[in-house]
Amino acid sequence: MRQAGRSLPEYRAIRTNDSILEAVKDPELAAEVTLQPVRRYGVDAAILFSDIVVPVSAIGVDIEIVAGRGPVVAEPFRYASDLARLRPLEPEVDTPYVIETVKLLKKELSVPLIGFAGAPFTVASYLIEGGPSRNFTHTKALMHTDETTWFALMDQLSQIALSSLQSQITAGADAIQLFDSWAGALSRADYEYFVLPATRRVLEGIGESAPRIHFGVGTGELLELMAGAGTDVLGVDWRTSLTDASARVGHRYALQGNLDPAVVIAGIEPAKVETARILEEGARHGGHIFNLGHGVLPETDPGVLAELVSFVHEWEPGTTR
Amino acid sequence: MRQAGRSLPEYRAIRTNDSILEAVKDPELAAEVTLQPVRRYGVDAAILFSDIVVPVSAIGVDIEIVAGRGPVVAEPFRYASDLARLRPLEPEVDTPYVIETVKLLKKELSVPLIGFAGAPFTVASYLIEGGPSRNFTHTKALMHTDETTWFALMDQLSQIALSSLQSQITAGADAIQLFDSWAGALSRADYEYFVLPATRRVLEGIGESAPRIHFGVGTGELLELMAGAGTDVLGVDWRTSLTDASARVGHRYALQGNLDPAVVIAGIEPAKVETARILEEGARHGGHIFNLGHGVLPETDPGVLAELVSFVHEWEPGTTR
Repeated sequence: MRQAGRSLPEYRAIRTNDSILEAVKDPELAAEVTLQPVRRYGVDAAILFSDIVVPVSAIGVDIEIVAGRGPVVAEPFRYASDLARLRPLEPEVDTPYVIETVKLLKKELSVPLIGFAGAPFTVASYLIEGGPSRNFTHTKALMHTDETTWFALMDQLSQIALSSLQSQITAGADAIQLFDSWAGALSRADYEYFVLPATRRVLEGIGESAPRIHFGVGTGELLELMAGAGTDVLGVDWRTSLTDASARVGHRYALQGNLDPAVVIAGIEPAKVETARILEEGARHGGHIFNLGHGVLPETDPGVLAELVSFVHEWEPGTTR
Repeated sequence: MRQAGRSLPEYRAIRTNDSILEAVKDPELAAEVTLQPVRRYGVDAAILFSDIVVPVSAIGVDIEIVAGRGPVVAEPFRYASDLARLRPLEPEVDTPYVIETVKLLKKELSVPLIGFAGAPFTVASYLIEGGPSRNFTHTKALMHTDETTWFALMDQLSQIALSSLQSQITAGADAIQLFDSWAGALSRADYEYFVLPATRRVLEGIGESAPRIHFGVGTGELLELMAGAGTDVLGVDWRTSLTDASARVGHRYALQGNLDPAVVIAGIEPAKVETARILEEGARHGGHIFNLGHGVLPETDPGVLAELVSFVHEWEPGTTR
């Protein structure tokens, strides 16, 4: 469960007022924060504490994570000249702390560690919009008016994502997840033409070196394309049922998801009802990793999440409606 | 094109600092603002200048439209006791200005007038969240934890929407559009159980008294259900191609949409390319009303929109790629 930490009191106790980008640079702290939800909930995998803008920040883009808002870029990318603000990521030099955190975690963990990176489109959207966006107007304007710059930027960001993931795998990450959180804002035609090739370079670059999970929100119309980008597991949000996702992408891909995080806030009883339905659907598909359909919401009650994890562990097919 | 007015200089000239809710109460002003985009763009229909919270505001809910944010409710609805804050809408008494605006417009317009209302779920989400929401946690919590209150609220809001629409039709509106803008935040199971029955009461209540358009954003997974709620036209946002929408709902329903509003901001050339694709898809479906897939964005260039309207009017099937 991504961002499972932020609803925990032990997380708030250990995290001082430094920014996430600063916390990520402290391997002891980053490892501890990664371990907290594993200890508390007994989940079956850990996901590295990091942020999708860590690599671009590390190579010099002036970016900060503003609480309650998200990544904010001091000078947004808009022109061909902005391409010079990026360079290839050298993980050993630029993000040694990420490598160190992975190594520390591998000593501590008895469950697999999932490394991660932001997909080129989603990272580009932060760079171009200058922060979180509702309409992605600048990003879409760039792709539709200056393809050369757009594809050059996608190329740079795919190299950065791939290098970062490879370094995490080399350090011991057992699987990777590529977050294209906002791909669902695009029409399928735009996704296929403007985004898919760069994403494919990342996922095919990983190849068989680690199991790959590909995730976005509101991507019901894109699932076949996102599966075909070269992944082993496809993340699905709650808007698309696993049954529909299964019909669209077939049994070649495992599915991950897809409880609505808001239902966890509604309480354990509604969460169990929805979870049982999802587990039944997942069992019919075959390969299924139970998860929320998006990150854990900050106001989530850790007690409900703990009970939900137990419920999933104890559940057997056919035992619920 | 909904919200086509707000990008116009003549709109900004006529709208003083009063709130939209105040402007709606001035029939001369509301009619003029409705007419502006029709004059400027030569579109084939007018959509009434109003807001989906006008009826609940008129019956006493303390609500204001905050610029750049949206409707903000002073005291959000959370409990069964809040149901007493609503009562049936009596349009002649509560919203006589809406009726008057429609009558004024019918004298002026040579194109059809589309009346409108907010669908029960979307209006409820504002009442419960207290304003625009990203995750709809309070709304989803209420539906999942207190069905009795939820369904009572849906019932009240469906009566209010239906009364408002009926009064607009009686005054002369030629068609109506029901906006369930945020329905796409729900899983299909939740939509079907918690929302569809109330929406159906509104649309079936209108019946054949006027053509009905049913619209939401990000509703690709809900299209069959939204069509089956009792509509003649189904609005589709840009995420779902008209070809896919056509395959899902069949030829019994006309489709409306679905140019990405952000592509209009990219400029006339990309907008034409996308529009031609949409028009070809719409022509293959049969009944098609060209429109944006969501409201006009405030930063839109009116010149581009005007050129786009001409392009649509002059376009003939098979003439573009």
